[in-house]
Amino acid sequence: MKYETGKTYEEIQLGEVASFSKTITEFDIYQFAGICGDFNPMHVNEAYAGKTKFKSRIAHGPLTQSLIAPVLGSKLPGLGTVLLELCCRFRAPVYINDTITAIAEVTEKLDEKKWIRLRLTWSNQNGMAVSEGHAIVMPPRPL
Amino acid sequence: MKYETGKTYEEIQLGEVASFSKTITEFDIYQFAGICGDFNPMHVNEAYAGKTKFKSRIAHGPLTQSLIAPVLGSKLPGLGTVLLELCCRFRAPVYINDTITAIAEVTEKLDEKKWIRLRLTWSNQNGMAVSEGHAIVMPPRPL
Amino acid sequence: MKYETGKTYEEIQLGEVASFSKTITEFDIYQFAGICGDFNPMHVNEAYAGKTKFKSRIAHGPLTQSLIAPVLGSKLPGLGTVLLELCCRFRAPVYINDTITAIAEVTEKLDEKKWIRLRLTWSNQNGMAVSEGHAIVMPPRPL
Amino acid sequence: MKYETGKTYEEIQLGEVASFSKTITEFDIYQFAGICGDFNPMHVNEAYAGKTKFKSRIAHGPLTQSLIAPVLGSKLPGLGTVLLELCCRFRAPVYINDTITAIAEVTEKLDEKKWIRLRLTWSNQNGMAVSEGHAIVMPPRPL
Repeated sequence: MKYETGKTYEEIQLGEVASFSKTITEFDIYQFAGICGDFNPMHVNEAYAGKTKFKSRIAHGPLTQSLIAPVLGSKLPGLGTVLLELCCRFRAPVYINDTITAIAEVTEKLDEKKWIRLRLTWSNQNGMAVSEGHAIVMPPRPL
Repeated sequence: MKYETGKTYEEIQLGEVASFSKTITEFDIYQFAGICGDFNPMHVNEAYAGKTKFKSRIAHGPLTQSLIAPVLGSKLPGLGTVLLELCCRFRAPVYINDTITAIAEVTEKLDEKKWIRLRLTWSNQNGMAVSEGHAIVMPPRPL
Repeated sequence: MKYETGKTYEEIQLGEVASFSKTITEFDIYQFAGICGDFNPMHVNEAYAGKTKFKSRIAHGPLTQSLIAPVLGSKLPGLGTVLLELCCRFRAPVYINDTITAIAEVTEKLDEKKWIRLRLTWSNQNGMAVSEGHAIVMPPRPL
Repeated sequence: MKYETGKTYEEIQLGEVASFSKTITEFDIYQFAGICGDFNPMHVNEAYAGKTKFKSRIAHGPLTQSLIAPVLGSKLPGLGTVLLELCCRFRAPVYINDTITAIAEVTEKLDEKKWIRLRLTWSNQNGMAVSEGHAIVMPPRPL
C-alpha cells in the first residue's frame, strides 16, 4: 500500500493558505465536553449561560481551535504532518450554529529545523475573527 | 437556582495548582477526529502509523491539550472562567491508553485587567511531560 | 444461551415487506461525518449549503442508505443475515429532521445459492422516494 | 467567504485515482449501529459472533462502504460533489482493527449529463479486496 503524502518543507511556499469550515452544533459542544471533561455551565447549561454576558451557551475555546487540525493534517502541509506548537487567543464567543472557518497561512520557513510557522485565524459566518494564533509544524517526509 | 462559582481574581493565589487526569482511549481519538475533521493517518490508521517513527497511532495534539479545559473551567479558577489564551508545545507522542494529567499552576496575576496567567503541563503515566504551555484566563465574577 | 434467528430461505415469501423509520437529525449527520470522514460542506457547513441549490445541509447518501440495515438484519430476513450486495440511487435530498422510512420487499429467490433479492425504497415524511435500490442477502441458518 | 471547490467535469481525467484509509475500530461499529439501528449480533454480540463462521464481530457492510464518501466528497471529484448512485458487493468480512482503504478510479465520463462513473474498491491491510462496486457522481460547479 502506497500512501499519499502532504507537502514537504521544500514544496511549501511563504504565503500559502488553506482552510477548513464547519458549522459548530450543539452536538459538537456536547461531544467535546464528553471527551475533555469540561462541563463549565457556559458550555452545557443554557439556564446559566442565559444569565451571563454571553446570553447563551458558547463553544469551548479548544473546540474552535481544533478545527485547524484538518487544515494542518490534511491540506497544509497535509498528510504526515507533526504538530509541534499551537497557540490561540480567543477574541469573541462562538455560539451554537456559528459556521467557523479555520485558516492557516505560511508565514515563516525555519531552515535549520525544516519546520514551518503558520498564522492561524478562525472566522465566523460574518467574517469576524473569533480567534487568532499560530502553529509550528514539521512537514511530512515520504515513508 | 443558585450556582456555584469559581475563585475570583482576589481569591486566587500565586503558586496554586490544580489538575485533571484521564486515560486517553481509542474512543477519545476517534471521537475527536469526528468532531474536528482531522483524519490524519497518524491518528486513525494503524497500518500507516506502524510504519512511522511513532510506531502506532497517536492522539491529536489538541485532544491532549483539551484536558486542561476542565482544570481551568471547574477548578482553577473554576466555574464561570473565560479562557482568553491557550498555548501548547507538543514534546512527545501520546498513545492510546496513556494516562494524561493536565496541570495548571498560577504564575502571574495581571492586576490591570484582573486576568490570571497559568503554567500548563501535560504528563503521562511515567511522569514524562508530553506537552507544556500556558493559559491566560478571566476568573469568574459572582452572577 | 439460545438466540433468536431470522427467517430462513425456505420461510421467506416473494412480496414480503418490512421497514424501519427514523427521523434523521443533525446528530446523525455529524456522527456519520465523524465515522466516515466525509466533511463535505454540503453536510456540515450551513453557510455553504445555504448558497447551494439544496438551500440547507443535507444528509450523506450512505447515511440514508444505512437505515435499510436494521430491516435486513433484524426483520427481513432478520438476525444472522449476511449482506452481499447493496445498491442505491439517490433521487432527492434528505434534510435535517426529515423522517425516512427504509422499505425492503422480497422480489426474487435465487434457488441455487439460496440468496434473496429485495427491492429497496427510502421515503421521506411526505411519501417522496428519496432513494431507490436493491440488496442481495444470505438469510440466516440456525446456529 | 470564498470556498475551495473540487474538480469540475472538464478537469477530471479517465484513470484518475484517489483513496482514504482508516482503521475500523469497535468504536466505529458501535457508533454506526447507534446511528442506523442495525444491532445484528454479528456486529455487536461477541458471544454470538464467536459461534458463527466469522468467529468474531464484523463491521456493517454499509460502514465499510461509507469510507468512500470522503474520497468522493473531498478528493475526487472533491468539495461540492453530489452522489447519485452507489453500489457495493461485499466479498469478505471486515474485523475490528482491520485497516480499510477505499479507492475510487474514474472509469467513465458521461458527456450528456456531465456525470462521472468510478470503480470502487475497499481493501484491507493485507491487500485483500473486501468489497467492490461503483459510484456515479455529479462533480461540483463553482458557486
